[in-house]
Amino acid sequence: MYDVIIIGAGAAGLTAAIYTCRKMLKTIIVSYDVGGQTSLTNNIENYPGTGSIPGPALMERFKNEAVGFGAELKMGKAVKVEKLKEKQFRIALDTGENYESKSLILAYGKVSRELGVPGEKKFMGRGVSTCVTCDAPFFKKRDVAVVGGGNSAVEGALELAKIANKVYLIHRRDSFRADEITVKKLKENKNVVQELSSAVKEIKGNKNVESVVIENPKTKKTKEHKVDGVFIEIGYVVDTKMVAHLVKLNDSGEVIKNDRGETSCQGIFAAGDVTNTPYKQTVISAGEGATAALQCYSYLTGGKGAIADWAK
Amino acid sequence: MYDVIIIGAGAAGLTAAIYTCRKMLKTIIVSYDVGGQTSLTNNIENYPGTGSIPGPALMERFKNEAVGFGAELKMGKAVKVEKLKEKQFRIALDTGENYESKSLILAYGKVSRELGVPGEKKFMGRGVSTCVTCDAPFFKKRDVAVVGGGNSAVEGALELAKIANKVYLIHRRDSFRADEITVKKLKENKNVVQELSSAVKEIKGNKNVESVVIENPKTKKTKEHKVDGVFIEIGYVVDTKMVAHLVKLNDSGEVIKNDRGETSCQGIFAAGDVTNTPYKQTVISAGEGATAALQCYSYLTGGKGAIADWAK
Repeated sequence: MYDVIIIGAGAAGLTAAIYTCRKMLKTIIVSYDVGGQTSLTNNIENYPGTGSIPGPALMERFKNEAVGFGAELKMGKAVKVEKLKEKQFRIALDTGENYESKSLILAYGKVSRELGVPGEKKFMGRGVSTCVTCDAPFFKKRDVAVVGGGNSAVEGALELAKIANKVYLIHRRDSFRADEITVKKLKENKNVVQELSSAVKEIKGNKNVESVVIENPKTKKTKEHKVDGVFIEIGYVVDTKMVAHLVKLNDSGEVIKNDRGETSCQGIFAAGDVTNTPYKQTVISAGEGATAALQCYSYLTGGKGAIADWAK
Repeated sequence: MYDVIIIGAGAAGLTAAIYTCRKMLKTIIVSYDVGGQTSLTNNIENYPGTGSIPGPALMERFKNEAVGFGAELKMGKAVKVEKLKEKQFRIALDTGENYESKSLILAYGKVSRELGVPGEKKFMGRGVSTCVTCDAPFFKKRDVAVVGGGNSAVEGALELAKIANKVYLIHRRDSFRADEITVKKLKENKNVVQELSSAVKEIKGNKNVESVVIENPKTKKTKEHKVDGVFIEIGYVVDTKMVAHLVKLNDSGEVIKNDRGETSCQGIFAAGDVTNTPYKQTVISAGEGATAALQCYSYLTGGKGAIADWAK
């Protein structure tokens, strides 16, 4: 019987574990990966206090700190969450194991959103990727496409431009959502061909990706670019079906939490990208992990808090 | 004319600056110190990603990053804040200088209330602490004192009791102000020695804290306890008179913000300890600084946000 099970080992979950362990709560983290979205980032420049650092290296530090303070880390995907009674939760992993605890912290983030076009699933891992950091090195001196207009897409394109021959950056809208400092770098980069107002229609190939077909949504004019790789960087979706019977979700399926990390269910707290928090950033998730952990501690030690005011 | 003036250079303000600068907003930070409350902390072990680090060293890194991304840092105390018109604010410093900007981020924190006794300032960071959560682990199996009678003092004493050898809980009055449930736990705890009707007269030591002298205000009888640490938990003071005509405050005088860092005044954002955020931690303030900066950027570039929904 644990005091708290933390589902997810990204910035939010690992920070929550640092805080619960320092409060002497018996803590287990269950996760199918370590580092979450941050680990998919090549270099993080905006996490304060570390300077520019590869995402996986930053998350390795978080993990070592959490484990160093006493957190157990169990690799596995949570597939079922039950509230047995007051202060008794049970979760089942895809490994067949079960764990019980007095409280839960949901911090398992989001997964990459799909384009939903022909060829995307077929060529996943055979040219289609959702992780520039992981897969860029396979495309040395090749032509590739990046799809998306936010920071991860634009940063991904810049990253690929250093390795690949040519990078088509494909975005549906007529301007990028990424930070201006990043967009500015893009303009200075000759390897990147911007394809704005362009939606991906199809990813084509034989055994592996060979081309991408794009279409201007207004003029319906199409183009086909020969590429060996297509990186899809169009954001993330949250998968909260597993907890939908326990906590209130918003229209996007995100777990609704208040400024103390409380959900609508007593004993269940939440932090980071799995929640309705407006901005998805490593430092923001870390802060929320700390908040959820401190409120969880308050709950377990009889402090007030428990059910969020707004949920009553 | 700046895009944004950030008042305060602690974890919240410096992180906000990192984010506004990366969004190419012309940013000036005004503050009478660098590092805020974090700089008063001996060692921070719970800021994820850096390992154990002296508070001032961590804040030096934050500062270098903010300045490195282009933030101007102006030393001086803001004494007047005016909204001249939509997207035009003016602040006056005690140095006599004035600055104008399109938006403001309030991030100037709180200051711990002081006892005002000999030794308090001298041993700050050398045994004297204002943060149990931050510094408790340094006093494993040692004797310590906690000063105060409210929730943070009593909860702090209970927390320390799990780690330290003996905890003297020193309070001027003859009963505690903390929640009854918390006080009840105190009575069940054998590690905590209650020193009611006791005012701290002096904190003594050589290089570090060695003892605390207390006095009964009525009988004037004094006692001296050998301790390695003195935790002063007599509350914080927030000084928001300067902005009270512009933004809504709660009963504690804290700036009310929502989960996007918006205040009740369009164009004014807030983050960290100056706000109604429930927990005061470096990583939480940093996360809130990032959120306020991103929302400020959204406001200045015509995104929605502006006046918080709840303030309408």
